[in-house]
Amino acid sequence: MMNFNTVTAALDWMGIVAFAISGAIVASRKQMDIVGFVVLGTVTGIGGGTLRDLLLGQSPVFWVREPAYLVVCTVISAAMFFVPRIPESRYRLVLWIDAIGLALFAVTGAERALVLGSHPVVAIVMGVITASFGGIIRDVFANQSPVVLSYEIYVMAALAAAGVFVSLSLAGAPRDLAMACGLAVGAGLRALAMRFGWSLPRYTKN
Amino acid sequence: MMNFNTVTAALDWMGIVAFAISGAIVASRKQMDIVGFVVLGTVTGIGGGTLRDLLLGQSPVFWVREPAYLVVCTVISAAMFFVPRIPESRYRLVLWIDAIGLALFAVTGAERALVLGSHPVVAIVMGVITASFGGIIRDVFANQSPVVLSYEIYVMAALAAAGVFVSLSLAGAPRDLAMACGLAVGAGLRALAMRFGWSLPRYTKN
Amino acid sequence: MMNFNTVTAALDWMGIVAFAISGAIVASRKQMDIVGFVVLGTVTGIGGGTLRDLLLGQSPVFWVREPAYLVVCTVISAAMFFVPRIPESRYRLVLWIDAIGLALFAVTGAERALVLGSHPVVAIVMGVITASFGGIIRDVFANQSPVVLSYEIYVMAALAAAGVFVSLSLAGAPRDLAMACGLAVGAGLRALAMRFGWSLPRYTKN
Repeated sequence: MMNFNTVTAALDWMGIVAFAISGAIVASRKQMDIVGFVVLGTVTGIGGGTLRDLLLGQSPVFWVREPAYLVVCTVISAAMFFVPRIPESRYRLVLWIDAIGLALFAVTGAERALVLGSHPVVAIVMGVITASFGGIIRDVFANQSPVVLSYEIYVMAALAAAGVFVSLSLAGAPRDLAMACGLAVGAGLRALAMRFGWSLPRYTKN
Repeated sequence: MMNFNTVTAALDWMGIVAFAISGAIVASRKQMDIVGFVVLGTVTGIGGGTLRDLLLGQSPVFWVREPAYLVVCTVISAAMFFVPRIPESRYRLVLWIDAIGLALFAVTGAERALVLGSHPVVAIVMGVITASFGGIIRDVFANQSPVVLSYEIYVMAALAAAGVFVSLSLAGAPRDLAMACGLAVGAGLRALAMRFGWSLPRYTKN
Repeated sequence: MMNFNTVTAALDWMGIVAFAISGAIVASRKQMDIVGFVVLGTVTGIGGGTLRDLLLGQSPVFWVREPAYLVVCTVISAAMFFVPRIPESRYRLVLWIDAIGLALFAVTGAERALVLGSHPVVAIVMGVITASFGGIIRDVFANQSPVVLSYEIYVMAALAAAGVFVSLSLAGAPRDLAMACGLAVGAGLRALAMRFGWSLPRYTKN
């Protein structure tokens, strides 16, 4: 029988892999050495969940309790260093995987907060932090303006995923259904935004 | 009868509002979208207190226990997105409110550390961190050189506020009096620095 | 009788002093005021250990329990502000002291994690974080691209130091011997890299 937790775990690992690859790609654009690849890849992959654990008082943080996350991020980012001429088409592929990771981290991050008895608003924010903070730290480390804060429907998609999941959970929906809906809405919104070039309007000074 | 705790609470909220607005104004200068406004506004409003709680081992952090802070920061920063042509005169007004927030966060941050039995030096540093770290994170997120570290008497005013409060508390002064003096010195120093363009001398290479 | 813990403590303090000076030197290059010197110096000196403590769930963090670290960082960075024309030759000297601090922080950071029962991989990562994160935060605060992520054999030296220490410890070597070997390998690798201008190859796009 299909076990949803296994699906979740599989998607969770997919998300970490996607985020680690996105960190490594930024490192390649900055022409860093292999250490830079590993640091950026790992920070992007586990950064959001680390901040979530710290804020919720879950310490030591998840990868101290479960070092496999650390090992996988390290191996993947290091391997990326040896990929010659990372092409734009591959970058597009990563963005699509990344959309799933984003939505899943938003849902699982929110769920961890709910399980701990947090207020729904806090749970939604924890989902957003888990999904997007890795990318923010990546951009700060790489000394580039955080992409998620200026251009794309990214934090918004995380917000939608976490919001749908938390709302359905509070309305009494089964956990699996609420997670699936949150995942679909978040990944779908992000995918549509990428496919059709949607972006939120930016503030204009005049 | 006037309850000083109510005054403190009122000023605390004023400080959060001022800091949230300052984050939103930086977002407007960077022409971010509404998500950027909310992230920068919230980070600036609650960032300093969050770091303080983590360092002191007070977890989960304050806004996880009391989500109203989060909601207020979000609503205010989102509302700022719809303010057309944020003028310089309004920016000046914010700086004045901000001076009060700075002093108050310095005092309340130091007090929380003292209540937990921290060393006076630690208490002063916690006051400075609570008052200034939100602005530092804001500038790092916005990819601009942290203003507080280069130009203005800002961290210095927080230091004065926390230092006066901690010194008077250790000397046996009533808590309310010590807080009022710290607040007056910190806000006054910052206001005078703004009014007369004071700044600390910068290091010269030759 | 010579007590190794005293040697460790002495080198630990040397490391903190070296890192505080390196933060102050970056502040001098950015022509900051004295507050900038103190903030950058202190952040560089205690930043790595602070993050390590937070991730391992050791709270409050070490300098809250032992404020002497804070006082020493503050006094040294403030004193650096009054050093006229910080010359390049002095900067070289700092880099050599810094190599010792790097190796020692890598070893002591890893040891703290091992003592708490962490997985060896986690212990090595904690060593690297303790040794290098102060410098990363320093560069982010100073709005310059993190040096450790792009050019020098720095994180690599920390990795070697922590890796040798953890491997020897797991192999049953006495703690003092394992620490001495880790220290020698880390500081030696960093010193050789500086002396001969070694750097890791960087990713090339074509």
